[in-house]
Amino acid sequence: MARNIQSLERAAAMLRLLAGGERRLGLSDIASALGLAKGTAHGILRTLQQEGFVEQEETSGRYQLGAELLRLGTTYLDVHELRARALVWTDDLARSSGESVYLGVLHQQGVLIVHHVFRPDDSRQVLEIGAMQPLHSTALGKVLSAYDPVAHSEAVEADRKAFTDRTVCDLAPFEQILDVTRARGYAADVEETWEGVASIAAPIHDRRRMPVGAVGITGAVERVCRDGELRPELIAAVRDCARAVSRDLGAGRF
Amino acid sequence: MARNIQSLERAAAMLRLLAGGERRLGLSDIASALGLAKGTAHGILRTLQQEGFVEQEETSGRYQLGAELLRLGTTYLDVHELRARALVWTDDLARSSGESVYLGVLHQQGVLIVHHVFRPDDSRQVLEIGAMQPLHSTALGKVLSAYDPVAHSEAVEADRKAFTDRTVCDLAPFEQILDVTRARGYAADVEETWEGVASIAAPIHDRRRMPVGAVGITGAVERVCRDGELRPELIAAVRDCARAVSRDLGAGRF
Repeated sequence: MARNIQSLERAAAMLRLLAGGERRLGLSDIASALGLAKGTAHGILRTLQQEGFVEQEETSGRYQLGAELLRLGTTYLDVHELRARALVWTDDLARSSGESVYLGVLHQQGVLIVHHVFRPDDSRQVLEIGAMQPLHSTALGKVLSAYDPVAHSEAVEADRKAFTDRTVCDLAPFEQILDVTRARGYAADVEETWEGVASIAAPIHDRRRMPVGAVGITGAVERVCRDGELRPELIAAVRDCARAVSRDLGAGRF
Repeated sequence: MARNIQSLERAAAMLRLLAGGERRLGLSDIASALGLAKGTAHGILRTLQQEGFVEQEETSGRYQLGAELLRLGTTYLDVHELRARALVWTDDLARSSGESVYLGVLHQQGVLIVHHVFRPDDSRQVLEIGAMQPLHSTALGKVLSAYDPVAHSEAVEADRKAFTDRTVCDLAPFEQILDVTRARGYAADVEETWEGVASIAAPIHDRRRMPVGAVGITGAVERVCRDGELRPELIAAVRDCARAVSRDLGAGRF
């Protein structure tokens, strides 16, 4: 049994390795990165390839992630209750705010985007479903860190990188921001992650009052703020959306 | 080694099981569906859960697919060369045709949608990246079956279901359609998969002249056809797009 589990852990480590950094790796690179004998690594890779989890480039022989992961990942979204409940409300929020809307959940050490509604204009936008955002600098991440104890530990233990001059990295001021977030019921990110970009997010609770995710808008700081302050009508729209989704998940009204 | 591989195969079978049908299953259901002892199934599930590939519903204890699959699936898209090369051209095709655009590749027994551009209007549309389409009835599937020998065998061996009155299920007429597809350089689906919906698709080739995917438009049959015929300007636009992407992948011009 222990042996079975070990081969699975190694396979998962290979997939994570292929998902980061180089993304196309040869057998030797994979074996040495994971400290495995080449034969062992090859046995796992061959099985992963057979199952569609990795693919091998014909010309170079290098390995990369496989199509089966996309199919399974999309199926994960299909059964995501929070996402299903949020679809209509996030569409409404994009329309009323004129900004793009993101729905995020805690995953590993960050925020996993499980839904993204484009800003309702004709601009070219890149879909970010499945992308990760940092916990300590984004509005979604601060909301999760403020309300979800697991997210809080992850954010506290993480190496909080400075993405811009405004990123709050030190622990004491970060904890203060989380206090303010809990007191106000929403969080903001004004150019703390991306220059020129601001976002506002609020928590979503389920029927047991557990924080299960966060929803927010993201847009140009010139549109999201006015006279250096977040536009109150946008804060209200985000919080309305979070409340509506929470109610749909069975959360009480008070 | 054989043992390692077996545990991986079983883990992959579990993920496929959770991706189809019920999508939330208890330990006993999973064990009996795969013919495994409960203890064996539990060991694999526990490891999959630890790695984020499955999640367990707290209240019911049932298992479902996990968030790590979404993150890895999105990373798969990031390294997809065909998709990267096609992004701009498919945007152009959506704009010029006024219809939604799909890019598909062969995966297992069907077409995996790796890119989807919404129809450029304000209608509510559901993103279908990661979804599967049948090989025998869709325009994308017919193109792949006509040009890719592996797709052809899959389509020939498959149980070709009738989705509408117009679906071609019998082998001889299906092979005739593939002959016509190769002769004309494109395939169509006029209400063979979905009532009221028509699509047109063309093959994409790489630098070795191998068929690596298909691109097509899909829309209401009233818009895609005129007087019972596919609109020639739409056929031309789809084929232009496929040629442009093929050239970007290094295919020769003749």
